[in-house]
Amino acid sequence: MSNPTFAPLTPPRRVLMGPGPSDTHPRVLAALGAATVGHLDPYFLQVMTETQTMLRQVFRTANELTLAVSGTGSAGMEACVVNLIEPGDKMVVCVNGVFGGRMADVAARAGAQVTVVERPFGEIFDASQIAEVVERVRPKVVGIVHAETSTGAHQPLEDISKVVHAVGGLLLADTVTSLGGVPVEVDAWQLDAVYSGSQKCLSCPPGLAPVTFSPRAVSSIERRRTKVASWYLDMTLVRNYWGQDRAYHHTAPINMNYALREALCVTLDEGLDARFARHAQNHRALKAGLAALGISYAVAEGVQLSMLNAVVIPPGVDDARTRRQLLEEFGIEIGGGLGPMKGKTWRIGLMGETSQPRNVLLFLAALERCLGDQGFGCPPGAGVAAANDFYRRRTA
Amino acid sequence: MSNPTFAPLTPPRRVLMGPGPSDTHPRVLAALGAATVGHLDPYFLQVMTETQTMLRQVFRTANELTLAVSGTGSAGMEACVVNLIEPGDKMVVCVNGVFGGRMADVAARAGAQVTVVERPFGEIFDASQIAEVVERVRPKVVGIVHAETSTGAHQPLEDISKVVHAVGGLLLADTVTSLGGVPVEVDAWQLDAVYSGSQKCLSCPPGLAPVTFSPRAVSSIERRRTKVASWYLDMTLVRNYWGQDRAYHHTAPINMNYALREALCVTLDEGLDARFARHAQNHRALKAGLAALGISYAVAEGVQLSMLNAVVIPPGVDDARTRRQLLEEFGIEIGGGLGPMKGKTWRIGLMGETSQPRNVLLFLAALERCLGDQGFGCPPGAGVAAANDFYRRRTA
Repeated sequence: MSNPTFAPLTPPRRVLMGPGPSDTHPRVLAALGAATVGHLDPYFLQVMTETQTMLRQVFRTANELTLAVSGTGSAGMEACVVNLIEPGDKMVVCVNGVFGGRMADVAARAGAQVTVVERPFGEIFDASQIAEVVERVRPKVVGIVHAETSTGAHQPLEDISKVVHAVGGLLLADTVTSLGGVPVEVDAWQLDAVYSGSQKCLSCPPGLAPVTFSPRAVSSIERRRTKVASWYLDMTLVRNYWGQDRAYHHTAPINMNYALREALCVTLDEGLDARFARHAQNHRALKAGLAALGISYAVAEGVQLSMLNAVVIPPGVDDARTRRQLLEEFGIEIGGGLGPMKGKTWRIGLMGETSQPRNVLLFLAALERCLGDQGFGCPPGAGVAAANDFYRRRTA
Repeated sequence: MSNPTFAPLTPPRRVLMGPGPSDTHPRVLAALGAATVGHLDPYFLQVMTETQTMLRQVFRTANELTLAVSGTGSAGMEACVVNLIEPGDKMVVCVNGVFGGRMADVAARAGAQVTVVERPFGEIFDASQIAEVVERVRPKVVGIVHAETSTGAHQPLEDISKVVHAVGGLLLADTVTSLGGVPVEVDAWQLDAVYSGSQKCLSCPPGLAPVTFSPRAVSSIERRRTKVASWYLDMTLVRNYWGQDRAYHHTAPINMNYALREALCVTLDEGLDARFARHAQNHRALKAGLAALGISYAVAEGVQLSMLNAVVIPPGVDDARTRRQLLEEFGIEIGGGLGPMKGKTWRIGLMGETSQPRNVLLFLAALERCLGDQGFGCPPGAGVAAANDFYRRRTA
């Protein structure tokens, strides 16, 4: 049998302005390539402890059960659902985008009696709508997405948390895209189970899913009558490895955990508030530039995510051709629309390390070129000028 | 809230001679630290295709459904079980170590009616014992471990495959520790679902689980009446991302997949047969050295794994003290016993890149020192001399 192999890997240099992964900090890449140690090595156990300490800071929580699941954000979603849900439990899932829909699917597979509450893609939920449903259904768990990566909508959670707790429910929140980019206040908002991903505003490559569980969620897990459906994601086992026992469960992804530790250091060295402000500022600069090019947002003012800018593709502009030209000529990745927004929106990420003035300017300059090549008329240089003007006023 | 952060990561240099992870090739570490691209980037799609091509070579299979699950080896186990099993299905699990026991647990959680067949830890199964059980139970799936990482026993699979197929069953095999170190002949042995881990004889860091499914297993999955319990591991969805559709499922761990691609290149550049011979040779050298020190294997001659040497801790020697001294003074990691073998055996890994004459010699020299410090008498230099003598005779 012949054994075809390949030359050493040489990935192209990209500017990752899609829905994730985002650009990775050099310190994080260096850590990824550091020498592997064993998963029970005292040094690695220290890395785990430091990671937990920093995850609690980033989640703004004192939750003991805070760790990185050995899978991507979707594994984090599944970990939260399967640990909280036993077959027959009632769960309400709020669906206003692809990821809410995914959560409903995961919950049904876990045996939940799922009640779906819907809003059109791009809109958000009002606490009163959720209150009406939870008072009627009395669910064990309510699941909602804080930052819908498919639509760019920013869902406030604090009031919804109150209405869920008023009926004795647990609130499960998806913060895959929000964590590290906008405030995620796990304790202040009393979120009970929260998952995220490493590759968005934390700017670590994909592969790990930070999760945190409130004491209320932990006691719910401890009262289960059935085993968690997934052995791999069973928090009653995983926490003995991440906790003081250090009992072997599975072999942790060593180098990925190195990378997450470094990404958390970079995040906290900058400071969370400074990081949120940076995300907000570059978002506003991009928006000013896009407005000058005649491009509008797909979600309403006031609910737009700073790290994920979903915009309407102008009439007559070819979605695939534009994204291909951005990638091939300028090395810029942006995302297309997902689900019903496919072909109708672009998703422009300004996440973590990617959220820099230089990327805003580059993107606006490159987009002007792509649009012009398709005969879409916009005032020459107007996008870049508007963004520069925004930055100039901010620093004046 | 204060934000404690930490200095940049500086892992110690280890010689990874435990049950995995093994030492990583510099080319693999370099790939880990290469710039991240998007999970739908044409370059990454090419990396996926190349990875699948090489995984088929390493598994020695033509199976189309061959890919890397985005989790560690245990996620690979769960992926195989939950895709093949529907609630109420009968599964026979062969348990002669910790990982067989884990598979029985995973199967029960998936709703299987599990029949456990047992052998004492360290022993292997005879096809006639399995034939008796499968003729009686008529299971949909039989699960067995090819290389029991907890005991160091090497389980032949070819005859067992025949008895399982004779009753219309599917054979699920754990090759976490064997793949890349001893022959794993997926097609020749007609294995139906096979999983492995990246961090053993492939010498990639942990975090990915190569899997492959035979056409028979795929058609079983296609005939399911229920959804796969795990959304994250649902092969009917995952294969649309790894297949020609390239449909977004979850965000693949980009840099980990870079690393696996490179590890597969390194493996195939060496050649599988040469790699198996290298593992066998260093195993025999180690065994000659250990014998000269008066240390015997925990499993019988003829069923010893070349990449995982489970040996009996000599009477009067302190398990934890010895392993701590090896780690602290020499940077050598070896594994302790798992389950009922805890405190009774050491597990000395010679996996992938770790399987080198220099590591065999270093380990024997360091072990002699540790044993001597505890007053365990062995002829000075005898272990190293015996191993050197073995190598000298091999090259003469």
